[in-house]
Amino acid sequence: MQNKEYTRFKGLVEEHLLYFLPEVDHKSITLYEAMAYSLKAGGKMLRSVLLLAACDFCGGDEKLALPYACAIEYIHTYSLIHDDLPAMDNDDLRRGIPTNHKVFGEAAAILAGDGLLTSAFEAMNKDMLLYFDNTDLLKRRVRAVYEISKGAGCRGMIAGQIADIEAENKQCTKEILDYIHLNKTAALIKAAIRAGAHLGGTDKKTLEDLDEYAENIGLAFQIVDDILDISGSEEQTGKTGSDQANRKATYPCRYGLEESRQKVRELTENAKKAMEPYYDNAEFFILLADDLAKRVK
Amino acid sequence: MQNKEYTRFKGLVEEHLLYFLPEVDHKSITLYEAMAYSLKAGGKMLRSVLLLAACDFCGGDEKLALPYACAIEYIHTYSLIHDDLPAMDNDDLRRGIPTNHKVFGEAAAILAGDGLLTSAFEAMNKDMLLYFDNTDLLKRRVRAVYEISKGAGCRGMIAGQIADIEAENKQCTKEILDYIHLNKTAALIKAAIRAGAHLGGTDKKTLEDLDEYAENIGLAFQIVDDILDISGSEEQTGKTGSDQANRKATYPCRYGLEESRQKVRELTENAKKAMEPYYDNAEFFILLADDLAKRVK
Repeated sequence: MQNKEYTRFKGLVEEHLLYFLPEVDHKSITLYEAMAYSLKAGGKMLRSVLLLAACDFCGGDEKLALPYACAIEYIHTYSLIHDDLPAMDNDDLRRGIPTNHKVFGEAAAILAGDGLLTSAFEAMNKDMLLYFDNTDLLKRRVRAVYEISKGAGCRGMIAGQIADIEAENKQCTKEILDYIHLNKTAALIKAAIRAGAHLGGTDKKTLEDLDEYAENIGLAFQIVDDILDISGSEEQTGKTGSDQANRKATYPCRYGLEESRQKVRELTENAKKAMEPYYDNAEFFILLADDLAKRVK
Repeated sequence: MQNKEYTRFKGLVEEHLLYFLPEVDHKSITLYEAMAYSLKAGGKMLRSVLLLAACDFCGGDEKLALPYACAIEYIHTYSLIHDDLPAMDNDDLRRGIPTNHKVFGEAAAILAGDGLLTSAFEAMNKDMLLYFDNTDLLKRRVRAVYEISKGAGCRGMIAGQIADIEAENKQCTKEILDYIHLNKTAALIKAAIRAGAHLGGTDKKTLEDLDEYAENIGLAFQIVDDILDISGSEEQTGKTGSDQANRKATYPCRYGLEESRQKVRELTENAKKAMEPYYDNAEFFILLADDLAKRVK
């Protein structure tokens, strides 16, 4: 990534990532270690960066958004831990290191996922209690938490995951494929941007444009990931490509690599178009869309 | 249970239990079915009843507390689904019917658990958005969500679960045993009562007394459960007793049945004592403590 703002936001998240986890007793130190292991595995922090950027873009204080940015990273990380379990995708490698259950065992990995998900909501709600007196900011926070819970939930990420599992080994329609992508990945990316926008005090029009941007890069991001799962090196993806082995419903499997690359370009253009009216203020978002697409050029 | 109020509160929860789940798309209907299956399995609804009762006791409107009562039932149910998984306790039967993964498969059961946990927070936060204009009530709701997230999280229920797993097959100290019980079970029971009290607008002293009550019946409840796991019939418990097979750290395993029964009696007396200053107003709580203890008399 050449995007300097991305690097700065990512740095902020990395610095605070463990800070918003609840302090655990030494008797449950394994739980903490398992959670921290996957958090520190060094992902792109895309969702948390987008949350901070959207808050900043809408005129909010990025420090105010930090607990929410970390919380959405906890949620994303829990979903990866559970997704990698033997009963799900059965992956041994994630972000270049052994998956959580390979190191801590399945039971601890399930609980670490549960712990991260719950910690996300604990962190966000604790933050509200700490700043109780500013009703305007309190309401922004409540809206942000709702967006995140919705995007992560049964009308968002989890809906995509169950559809993904049910589509395995089946001939997959375009409708189902879009449903999986929109929910499994785009929903949480959208939630990150919407939550950040609310925290920053967005107006209605800006929220709509950010929404349009989010949906397009969310879809593009998932297709890029699926292309890399087939064509990328293990070094590039940090994991062993399991989609083909699991006969997953993916864009490249259904449409081939070239048409998938074309789709990424289209989505990237749509995303950029949504943010063009904001000129230089939206530079971060324009650069990011291009950077994501570049990974499979 | 002879406690009429208990029956009334339980009826209210049962009536609304599916109402606060998010509306899912027909493409993720399996997710909904798996969640509903375990919710409708007919548990005691102890945590949700306690939440409603505490709200009512503190002068709050029980209808206002319903989304929170259902949410805590979602959390309790998710914890059972994950707890029953092969990687955890590996139970085939729960509440007299096959466990979630036996019916829907492991992957769907993991996601149903994740879905219920996320839905709990979605329901509570949606409720806040719907009643945004009353700042006093908004703050009560934020406090309630924080209590629930804390009780369900890494300083509560999940801490107890990881300690429980780690204690398997080991000589267990009194300290570890108390830690497991306090966290695995009492923490969420306490959170239910504290959340209800906040929703009802509790004062500090009442909250302290309810806390004392909650901790005592929470511990008593877990010991009763463990006694029944050994001495109760499958009909009475709705599950196959797996504690001995899993070599779990439990009171009866460590202290024997008679000393465990004595401990239940002591805890029950302590709980009742905490609520005695409230005379007739606390009748529900006094009756409930007795009813819980009676199961192993």
